[in-house]
Amino acid sequence: MTNNTKNNCTLTEQTAERLMKYIFDRELKEGNKLPNERELGSWLGVGRGTVREAIKILASRNVLEVRHGAGTFISKKNGVPDDPLGLTFIKDKKKLIQDLLEFRIWVEPHVAALAAQYAIDKDIEELECLCNEVDKCILSGQSHIQKDVEYHIRIAECSRNLIMPNLMPILHSAINLFVTETGSTLREETMKTHRAILNAIKLRDVSAASDAMYLHLIYNRDRLREGLRTSD
Amino acid sequence: MTNNTKNNCTLTEQTAERLMKYIFDRELKEGNKLPNERELGSWLGVGRGTVREAIKILASRNVLEVRHGAGTFISKKNGVPDDPLGLTFIKDKKKLIQDLLEFRIWVEPHVAALAAQYAIDKDIEELECLCNEVDKCILSGQSHIQKDVEYHIRIAECSRNLIMPNLMPILHSAINLFVTETGSTLREETMKTHRAILNAIKLRDVSAASDAMYLHLIYNRDRLREGLRTSD
Repeated sequence: MTNNTKNNCTLTEQTAERLMKYIFDRELKEGNKLPNERELGSWLGVGRGTVREAIKILASRNVLEVRHGAGTFISKKNGVPDDPLGLTFIKDKKKLIQDLLEFRIWVEPHVAALAAQYAIDKDIEELECLCNEVDKCILSGQSHIQKDVEYHIRIAECSRNLIMPNLMPILHSAINLFVTETGSTLREETMKTHRAILNAIKLRDVSAASDAMYLHLIYNRDRLREGLRTSD
Repeated sequence: MTNNTKNNCTLTEQTAERLMKYIFDRELKEGNKLPNERELGSWLGVGRGTVREAIKILASRNVLEVRHGAGTFISKKNGVPDDPLGLTFIKDKKKLIQDLLEFRIWVEPHVAALAAQYAIDKDIEELECLCNEVDKCILSGQSHIQKDVEYHIRIAECSRNLIMPNLMPILHSAINLFVTETGSTLREETMKTHRAILNAIKLRDVSAASDAMYLHLIYNRDRLREGLRTSD
């Protein structure tokens, strides 16, 4: 690789970093539109080509989203990459799924307890709404996975722990992949245990929220083990 | 943006995905060298320019590492991005640091317990070696942070949980940032509690390993709180 190319890479990376700072300083949020390449270039003191390359880098990191014909926007993925833990590189998917669920069992009961402590009335209304939507999907025979993930992410947000909402989608996407692969899910138990978590949070009962989440995940683990035995 | 540019983006992304599959199928590991752009291009049926763009994308995701003049290699970062949880976007760094430590308290005692269950003799030798190196750094007045992180990552590897080794560096890098910012660390307690974790793992004592890790992290949290109060 020539020196020129090397310097270009460095300039692109530097521009990407400065663009991050630009976004950060202005507190730009999900869906906000960036100025066009020419304006950004004159702001950052680099050419349009460099701006475009820097935007590509930040788009590949899920910080930005390029909508063709419309412009460049702050991605709703919050800069969380598609495979943030490099799980693609892990070959043993069965062990991976089990380890992810084990991990959830360590973490999510604490998260539910904090949610019971910190949720405000508006949070609880939204949780109740999501809980109802999951039930509705299950009862009408539709996939409830998307709403199920949203429910758990919403609980994570209620906990006020800053890293959980970003970590949760990763843990869930992989588990849902498994659910899709091994067939049906725990429909009855899902409805019952989700409702128990909600009720405990509503009552601000920290221990009950933790217990309900634990029970929910243990049901999931038992079913997972059953599924893995069957698919062997 | 023109249609042509749009198609190029798609082709580059597709090529990046196919390159991922190429790496995955051949089970290429950290440090392995990729063929040159021309060979990869003819393998993947695309031009050199597209290969170069795809390599840039995978380098920005820490899957590949371009060493100028030497070639393209599999990165030792295992595809784990520099900021996988999008923590850069979190403004309240004090709360972030506390939440990360809270999270470690939920997780790492379990990890230590599993390490006591699954570590083989070679693992324990390596843990002992790292434990000694941390002590040596502390006693000679050098920074022990790097070795400290390695020690915890090595314990995570001993647990055989597949996601922990990838998650651990993220949790630790942010905490070490705090340590650097607030000054000195818990030198005496670090040596004592690290040794207690090691001894429990050596004895295959699952409960003692969990307790020792818990104690280690609680010491850290108390010091963190003290540091935060002082810096207010």
